[in-house]
Amino acid sequence: MISRISGGVTAPRGFSAACCAAGIRYQGRTDMAMLFSQAPCAVAGTFTSNRVKAAPVLWDMDIVNAGAPVQAVVVNAGIANAATGKTGLELCHSSALAASDALGIPASSVLLGSTGVIGPNLPLDRLSAGIRTMASALSDSEEAGTLASKAIMTTDTVNKEFAVEFYLPAAGGEGTVPVRLGGMSKGSGMIHPDMCTMLGYLTTDCAISRELLEKALKKTVPDTFNMITVDGDTSTNDTLLLMANGLAGNKPITEEDESFAVFSEAVFSVCRDLAVLMASDGEGATHLVEMRVFNADTKENARTLARSVVGSSLVKAMIFGRDANCGRILCALGYAGPDFDPAVIELYLHGENETLCFYRDGCVQAFDEEKAAAILAEKEVRFSCDMKAGSEEAVAWGCDLTYDYVKINGDYRS
Amino acid sequence: MISRISGGVTAPRGFSAACCAAGIRYQGRTDMAMLFSQAPCAVAGTFTSNRVKAAPVLWDMDIVNAGAPVQAVVVNAGIANAATGKTGLELCHSSALAASDALGIPASSVLLGSTGVIGPNLPLDRLSAGIRTMASALSDSEEAGTLASKAIMTTDTVNKEFAVEFYLPAAGGEGTVPVRLGGMSKGSGMIHPDMCTMLGYLTTDCAISRELLEKALKKTVPDTFNMITVDGDTSTNDTLLLMANGLAGNKPITEEDESFAVFSEAVFSVCRDLAVLMASDGEGATHLVEMRVFNADTKENARTLARSVVGSSLVKAMIFGRDANCGRILCALGYAGPDFDPAVIELYLHGENETLCFYRDGCVQAFDEEKAAAILAEKEVRFSCDMKAGSEEAVAWGCDLTYDYVKINGDYRS
Repeated sequence: MISRISGGVTAPRGFSAACCAAGIRYQGRTDMAMLFSQAPCAVAGTFTSNRVKAAPVLWDMDIVNAGAPVQAVVVNAGIANAATGKTGLELCHSSALAASDALGIPASSVLLGSTGVIGPNLPLDRLSAGIRTMASALSDSEEAGTLASKAIMTTDTVNKEFAVEFYLPAAGGEGTVPVRLGGMSKGSGMIHPDMCTMLGYLTTDCAISRELLEKALKKTVPDTFNMITVDGDTSTNDTLLLMANGLAGNKPITEEDESFAVFSEAVFSVCRDLAVLMASDGEGATHLVEMRVFNADTKENARTLARSVVGSSLVKAMIFGRDANCGRILCALGYAGPDFDPAVIELYLHGENETLCFYRDGCVQAFDEEKAAAILAEKEVRFSCDMKAGSEEAVAWGCDLTYDYVKINGDYRS
Repeated sequence: MISRISGGVTAPRGFSAACCAAGIRYQGRTDMAMLFSQAPCAVAGTFTSNRVKAAPVLWDMDIVNAGAPVQAVVVNAGIANAATGKTGLELCHSSALAASDALGIPASSVLLGSTGVIGPNLPLDRLSAGIRTMASALSDSEEAGTLASKAIMTTDTVNKEFAVEFYLPAAGGEGTVPVRLGGMSKGSGMIHPDMCTMLGYLTTDCAISRELLEKALKKTVPDTFNMITVDGDTSTNDTLLLMANGLAGNKPITEEDESFAVFSEAVFSVCRDLAVLMASDGEGATHLVEMRVFNADTKENARTLARSVVGSSLVKAMIFGRDANCGRILCALGYAGPDFDPAVIELYLHGENETLCFYRDGCVQAFDEEKAAAILAEKEVRFSCDMKAGSEEAVAWGCDLTYDYVKINGDYRS
C-alpha cells in the first residue's frame, strides 16, 4: 500500500534542502538548490545517452559508477556547463570542493547538476558563494524541499515534486515502520525519451543495498521518464539520481523479496507522476497527450509505437488545433518501425465520459465531429490502440505543439 | 555536361500533361493532374516505408514491381485515399479503368497518386469526370507541365518543377542527340527522410533499360529526397516515379557506362533541386537550413548526423528566432546515434560573405553575436561540421519551425 503524502525531497527522514538566488544567469529568482542527507546515502543514477555529455553528467557518472556513498547534491539553473571542455570539468571539481568545505563531507560525495544554455562557463565565484549560503540555510521542512524544486526550474511553469509513504518490516523484526520516498524534477524542453530526459532527484530513507537501489531505478525508467517526449531533443545534461540514507529503520532490503517489490512500486509511482507532470508542462503546452498501446507482440514494440504517436509534430499540432484529423495517429504508428497489420488494429479516442473508435478494419471510421472536438478540448487527451497481436502494453505521454513552443525556443537565451 | 532548361515533366519528347478542377475537396483551384507518354515507358519507383500504405501506393508498387511498361499517371490532391481499406483499393481500380477507357491504354499501365487528408473516400464520380476532361486536354506544352505541377500542390506555396538537357551517343552510332529529363513534385508537410517523402514524377525521353533506370533512381534517393525533413513525419503516400519513353533516339543505355553516368547525374541534379525546393517550402518555413557533415567515418553516419541537425525542433525554432544558440547543433549531433569524439569536431556557421567557427576543442567558442544574427537573417542558413574521422560527406536540408507551421497543422482540414 503506497500512500501519496505532501512534500518532495525532504519528506524522507534525514534529508534537508536549501536554495538561493546566486545570479548565475537569471535575475530576481532563485537559481541554485542543495540537497543534503545527514547520513551517507547509497546512490543509483541514469544519465543522458547523448554523445555530448555535460561536465556535471561526467562528474556524477564517475561517482555513481564508483559505488561509494554520497551525501549532497548541488544544482544550478541557467547555464548547462555543457560544451565547456576541460574548464567545465575543473569547475565541477571546484564546486564540489566548495561544498565539501561548507558541509564537512568528502568532495567525492557531492553530486552536481546543471541545466540551461549550452556553451557558456559557469561563474565560479557566484557558484561558490551560493554553495556557502545554502550550506548554512539547510532545512528539513517541507517548504525547503518545495523551494528547492522551484530553484531548478528553467522554462518550467510549475515546480514538480511528489512524495509517498509505505510500510516495510522493521529492522528489529517486530512490526513495520513507515518508509518515505520523495522526488523533484525539472524539464520542459529538450525532453525526449532516451535515458532520463531531465534533471530528477529522488530521496528515500529506506535501508536498501546499492545493487537493489540501482535495480529499482533501472527497471522504472523505461516506462516512466523514457516514455515522455516534448520535442524529440535529448539533452546533454539529463540526470536522474536516487539516494537512500537508510534512516527509516526498516529491515535492510538485500534481495528481491516482497519489500523490494513494494519499494520498486513506490519508485515507479513517484517517477511516473513526475514524468507525466513534465509532459503536461512541456514548453508552451496546453494539453497533456497520452497514448496507450495494448495487445502488442512485445513490450519494446508497444513502447516504440506509443512514443511515435506522442512525438509526431503533426499529431501534436492537431491536438493544439483541436482538429480530429485522426489519420495522423495511424500514420505515426506506421512509421514507428515495428511491423503490424494495418487491417486489424483499432484506434480509440477517450474522453472523460465517452470513447470513440476512429479506425477499424483498415478504414478511418465516420465519427461525430462535435463529440471529437469536445474530447480534444479536454485538458488531457487520451488515445489508445489495440494491436491485436499479443498481450504487451505501454503508455507514452507528451503534449501539444503550440505557438508558444516556437516562441519560447526561438528566443530562449534572451 | 548537364544544362538546366525551362519547364518540367513535359520537357522530354513525347510527354504531355493536363490538369483540371475536379472539386475533390478544394474549391476554386485545380486538384487533379494527368501525365501521358505517347510511347510506353520503362518505370522505376520508390515508395513510403510507412507500414500504413495508401491505396494508390499499393497500386503503383504492384505495377512497378511487375516490370511492365506504363503510359500514364493520374494524381489528385485533397484526399489521400489512405486508411480506406478495400474501398480505397477498388477505387484505384475504377480510376485506372476510367483512364484506360479515356486514353485507350491498358489499365495496368496507369499509375495513380493521391495526397491530402487521411481517411475519407475519394468521390469516384468527380474523379472519373476529371480523368475524362484531362484525357481530352493533354498538351505537350511547357505550360501544361507547369499547370500540372500546380494542380498537385496541397499546403505548398510554390509549384516545383525542373528540367535538364544532356547529350548522349545517337542510336545510329553517329554523333550525339539531346536527351531531356524533367520532374515535378509536391510536398510541404509530413516530410521526413525515409524513402521518397512526397509525390514526385520524373519523365525522360532517354532510351534506357528498366534495370538501369531503377539503379539510377535508387542511388539518387538516399542523398536527395531522403536528406530533407520538415517535421519528422513520414507520410503514408510517398511516391517517386521515373518514367522513360526512349524517344530521344539515343543509343539505349544497357550497362553502367559513360552514358549511364551522365544520365544518373541528370537524375541526381533534378532530384536534388526538387528536394531542396521542398525543404525550403516546408510548411510555414521562412528559412532553408542546410547541414553539411564532412570528414565523417562512413557515408551513412554522415547522413544520420546531418539529418539529426536539420530535424531538431530546437535548432529549427532557434533559426526562426535568429538566435545563435549554437549549442543546440552540437546537442543534435550528440543524440543522432553515431559515435564521435566531441573533443575534436569543429562546427561552423556559413554566411554569404563570412564563416564563423562556433565550436572547437570541446568548447562553444565566443563569436560575434551581431555577425551571427546577420547570418541567421539570411534566407538560407548553412552549418557544417568537420568530424575529423574520415573522408565521407553528406548534406541534409530542412527549414525553420514557425508559428505558421503550428497554424497550418492545427487546422489542416478546414
